[in-house]
Amino acid sequence: MSPKITTELLKQLRQVMKSPKYVQEPIQAYIVPSGDAHQSEYIAPCDCRRAFISGFDGSAGTAIVTEQHAAMWTDGRYFLQAAHQMDNNWTLMKMGLKDTPTQEDWLVSVLPEGSKVGVDPFIIPADQWKRMSKALRSAGHDLVPVKENLIDTIWTDCPQRPCKPLITLSLSYTGVSWRDKIVALRSKMAERKVLWFVVTALDEVAWLFNLRGSDVEYNPVFFAYAVIGMNTIRLFIDGDRMMDPAVREHLQLDSTLEPEFKIQVMPYGSILSELQAVGASLSPKEKVWLSDKASYALTEAIPKAYRYLTPYTPICIAKAVKNASETEGMRRAHIKDAVALCELFNWLEKEVPKGTVTEIIAADKAEEFRSQQKDFVELSFATISSTGPNGAIIHYKPVPETNRTLSVNEIYLLDSGAQYKDGTTDVTRTMHFGTPSAYEKECFTYVLKGHIAVSAAIFPNGTKGHLLDSFARSALWDCGLDYLHGTGHGVGSFLNVHEGPCGISYKTFADEPLEAGMIVSDEPGYYEDGSFGIRIENVVLVIPAETKYNFKNRGSLTFEPLTLVPIQTKMIDVNLLTQKECNWVNDYHQKCREVIGAELERQGRHEALRWLIRETEPLIRAQ
Amino acid sequence: MSPKITTELLKQLRQVMKSPKYVQEPIQAYIVPSGDAHQSEYIAPCDCRRAFISGFDGSAGTAIVTEQHAAMWTDGRYFLQAAHQMDNNWTLMKMGLKDTPTQEDWLVSVLPEGSKVGVDPFIIPADQWKRMSKALRSAGHDLVPVKENLIDTIWTDCPQRPCKPLITLSLSYTGVSWRDKIVALRSKMAERKVLWFVVTALDEVAWLFNLRGSDVEYNPVFFAYAVIGMNTIRLFIDGDRMMDPAVREHLQLDSTLEPEFKIQVMPYGSILSELQAVGASLSPKEKVWLSDKASYALTEAIPKAYRYLTPYTPICIAKAVKNASETEGMRRAHIKDAVALCELFNWLEKEVPKGTVTEIIAADKAEEFRSQQKDFVELSFATISSTGPNGAIIHYKPVPETNRTLSVNEIYLLDSGAQYKDGTTDVTRTMHFGTPSAYEKECFTYVLKGHIAVSAAIFPNGTKGHLLDSFARSALWDCGLDYLHGTGHGVGSFLNVHEGPCGISYKTFADEPLEAGMIVSDEPGYYEDGSFGIRIENVVLVIPAETKYNFKNRGSLTFEPLTLVPIQTKMIDVNLLTQKECNWVNDYHQKCREVIGAELERQGRHEALRWLIRETEPLIRAQ
Repeated sequence: MSPKITTELLKQLRQVMKSPKYVQEPIQAYIVPSGDAHQSEYIAPCDCRRAFISGFDGSAGTAIVTEQHAAMWTDGRYFLQAAHQMDNNWTLMKMGLKDTPTQEDWLVSVLPEGSKVGVDPFIIPADQWKRMSKALRSAGHDLVPVKENLIDTIWTDCPQRPCKPLITLSLSYTGVSWRDKIVALRSKMAERKVLWFVVTALDEVAWLFNLRGSDVEYNPVFFAYAVIGMNTIRLFIDGDRMMDPAVREHLQLDSTLEPEFKIQVMPYGSILSELQAVGASLSPKEKVWLSDKASYALTEAIPKAYRYLTPYTPICIAKAVKNASETEGMRRAHIKDAVALCELFNWLEKEVPKGTVTEIIAADKAEEFRSQQKDFVELSFATISSTGPNGAIIHYKPVPETNRTLSVNEIYLLDSGAQYKDGTTDVTRTMHFGTPSAYEKECFTYVLKGHIAVSAAIFPNGTKGHLLDSFARSALWDCGLDYLHGTGHGVGSFLNVHEGPCGISYKTFADEPLEAGMIVSDEPGYYEDGSFGIRIENVVLVIPAETKYNFKNRGSLTFEPLTLVPIQTKMIDVNLLTQKECNWVNDYHQKCREVIGAELERQGRHEALRWLIRETEPLIRAQ
Repeated sequence: MSPKITTELLKQLRQVMKSPKYVQEPIQAYIVPSGDAHQSEYIAPCDCRRAFISGFDGSAGTAIVTEQHAAMWTDGRYFLQAAHQMDNNWTLMKMGLKDTPTQEDWLVSVLPEGSKVGVDPFIIPADQWKRMSKALRSAGHDLVPVKENLIDTIWTDCPQRPCKPLITLSLSYTGVSWRDKIVALRSKMAERKVLWFVVTALDEVAWLFNLRGSDVEYNPVFFAYAVIGMNTIRLFIDGDRMMDPAVREHLQLDSTLEPEFKIQVMPYGSILSELQAVGASLSPKEKVWLSDKASYALTEAIPKAYRYLTPYTPICIAKAVKNASETEGMRRAHIKDAVALCELFNWLEKEVPKGTVTEIIAADKAEEFRSQQKDFVELSFATISSTGPNGAIIHYKPVPETNRTLSVNEIYLLDSGAQYKDGTTDVTRTMHFGTPSAYEKECFTYVLKGHIAVSAAIFPNGTKGHLLDSFARSALWDCGLDYLHGTGHGVGSFLNVHEGPCGISYKTFADEPLEAGMIVSDEPGYYEDGSFGIRIENVVLVIPAETKYNFKNRGSLTFEPLTLVPIQTKMIDVNLLTQKECNWVNDYHQKCREVIGAELERQGRHEALRWLIRETEPLIRAQ
């Protein structure tokens, strides 16, 4: 992987930063955030502005370009990748390390007095704007909105914004009709006494209307906004997608409906002016509900006194708690996904010793097996297929320049998942196709102990996920080891593989409490730069737990793994496990054997079934 | 305990809330916070305004009185106590429960439109003012400073502000001279480019000058402020305390000193005008450093552009990391404290069966034994001596009306500590003087497992204490149990028994990372309302941990118990312990036997020594 040469691009950007064509006054710094106008984590090619200007294409990062400097902030998952992809024009700011300055502190340290810092107001979330604006102002600088995106002005071959056909989801997948979702949303609005709700996140629009799209790779969403009033529904969406008869039927666009369920379809680009009109029409005490992560541009459309901002929207919270249809769909998706992986690992076991399987071939083979499964739509993220030292690059994606051949001498880490019409999967397994060293087994076993500690944890109702994060690290900490990423994220139901408002991480404190029906990942790891990476990830469902007592009648929760793929027992040093942990592995493997075995049988995949049975032999612990 | 009748007082308060003598415009609500002008947790009698108006005298709580309502917010430790001490005029707001409104939300829900909410600007911290003011303003109300404290206007027999003599601490206790502390502080000020630092917390003033006082019960502090400039030191303190030759000598008030170490002594009451003068003298870019918990009144004395506010001051952080002299002092104090408790428990064991020992007698006896120890100054907090159902009142203090007799049929919980000139102690032991039930032993053992999980935890440098909180709860959670308080607090060195900036609690996120030399408590518990309370508390020192590996060269930390008092083995269900936990108990008891045994021997306390030896017999776990 050679870095992108950015000297010329930076020169052009610095020119437009001073050009009266684009800025009222010259700006001394320009911020290029990661997201799009919907604050999406995964973005369409036309929104990959930060990757365009810097070369670094990881999923998280913020670039800031001043007249003298260019700096990139990213987190521990991407330190190695960013360092590889960026040229010497760029300084890497390693977030989470003690000595790394915040963006604000850094700007203050490098800017000349009274500087102007520009940013696209559609791309920066209102809460970030506020924090940064305040910090800059207190140091005598100004954060200013730059209407035209400056990257777009120098990006001559910028791709078009996608506008692909939509998929309608029937009640058997969603469990709740879009009408009932609107009713529930309006009742939350009435509770908080707000008149309007603005849906800005793409997955929230998709969830609300039981529609899916493919405008963004891996995320079945489409570019749209919605504005929900107590008696009106406005959907802002482009293209001829609303001409599709199935969509018209699904949204009842041609039916005689009560007016409060009649959807008004409007152009995507008209959201700002429509919202400004809403803002101008409000009477005192009338409020408009927005996420505090909505863009600065849309937030400013509503006068401050009328805004009702929350970190998580009622849609975000409702979407996180899966109903019975969604849970059943997620179970089906995970069974199919496990079938594909049993096929893959059985195939790898035979092929790797021949020395012909590269990371890319393995990833493609995983996709091939998944695509054979019913209702497969696409992958849920770029497959992380990494062997040996590449495994230590936490969000690695194999490309021809880095593509390494799997061997019997290295650890192989595969983090992959798919979108099925009935659910989203995300699973990591770490395997050795030869004989792992005692040290590799030791590290793997600590990671496994952490995985089990979270998966088997029992905790009271009302507990926030971040309180469980240390359970995943305890066994590693005991030996002086750790990993520099969170332990888990929310997972959508045929939606984004990363979603809020819950998660398991030492980094967050504002997460919402875990509730029965929520679905998160459990994925501790251990990484040695230049040597190997280990991660064990299941997607788990929050379920009520039976406990001996019930303090204050609060009730307890625990997790049920939805992912049912064997954890390679060859990598486990069984003597490092407690009997309880050993039983957990055996019970888990027994369930894999029963549930996935039956499906492999049904699909006539007998070789993979034999592999599964072998790989789920019970561990025996020396007494 | 019968509640305080507050009808007449509330009537008077509501009158002064409308009296033009005290308020410019009538106020519709008056907030009575817990603290004093220094935001102290423990306060002098003259500052117990919230207790005066409501009857509730726990250490944490905020009262709000409106024309119609009177409401009290307090946390889980005090739910029972507050309910007992307050009459029907008051509504108890149980903080931490899901349905309890915040003070702001409640005010908005009960106030008539456009209300004014008053508060004493010296008593409310600036950060609280800001939050509350913002919330009220956005609902159309106003938070207004009321110069004269309205409680003081109706408190006819309010006691005088104390002004007791000072104790000077020599280098052998403090390890660092006050001059060197000033030098270190100024270097932190230079780093942050601030010209002035305002010391507002009483323990910070005491620590900085190596002085102690006794103006506040249990906390060896004195009423004072300090303002440190790069070349000036101003100490605001009342009375003739500065006439004491020992104090003059200690502060070198009569010596020829470099001007930057010359202390200017000023009246306590002149702080506001002096600070306003400092504020008025500043040039652009000159900054004044204050805690964001400093009072609104003092914070406002410095114009906003010149303020540099941080949640923790450099003194707070330096004070938390104990140097070798302080650590050695804390060790000595804990050895003496353990001697006193061995004497007490040996005495209780003989006396309780006679049925003559009440909670108050036991508490007095504990104080008697402590006072026999060298350098004993006073208790470090009101002894919690509680038996049976009283044990479930988390911060219970026995009074004649509740005083219960210890018996062989109930669990006894003693949470107590002392101030010695060389250190501060805080220890909780839960004992049974007869035969505990299987259920009591089971609960005790879960609490013990939590205590051990924290005490034996190994974690990376840079870890914040709140990440360890769940370790203390895991065993309880597994059975559906929990406790409604944090797990640990920082402990001062012959200073406040509760101090920041570190701690172990699910509630905080802004705590500073644990560092070697910090001292915290480890005190999980379990409480059954109406039945019993269990808590096991040691004070522990953060020390470097030896680990097999050392990820990213970060180094690891763990805890060393300073408290060395046997944990009653009779209460332990040894079969619920893992072998590792069993070894921890045995190692701990071995250390108690060696260290405290030697001191008991030295002090000729042979009976207590025999008790210690019996109580530290190793546990044996069935294989």
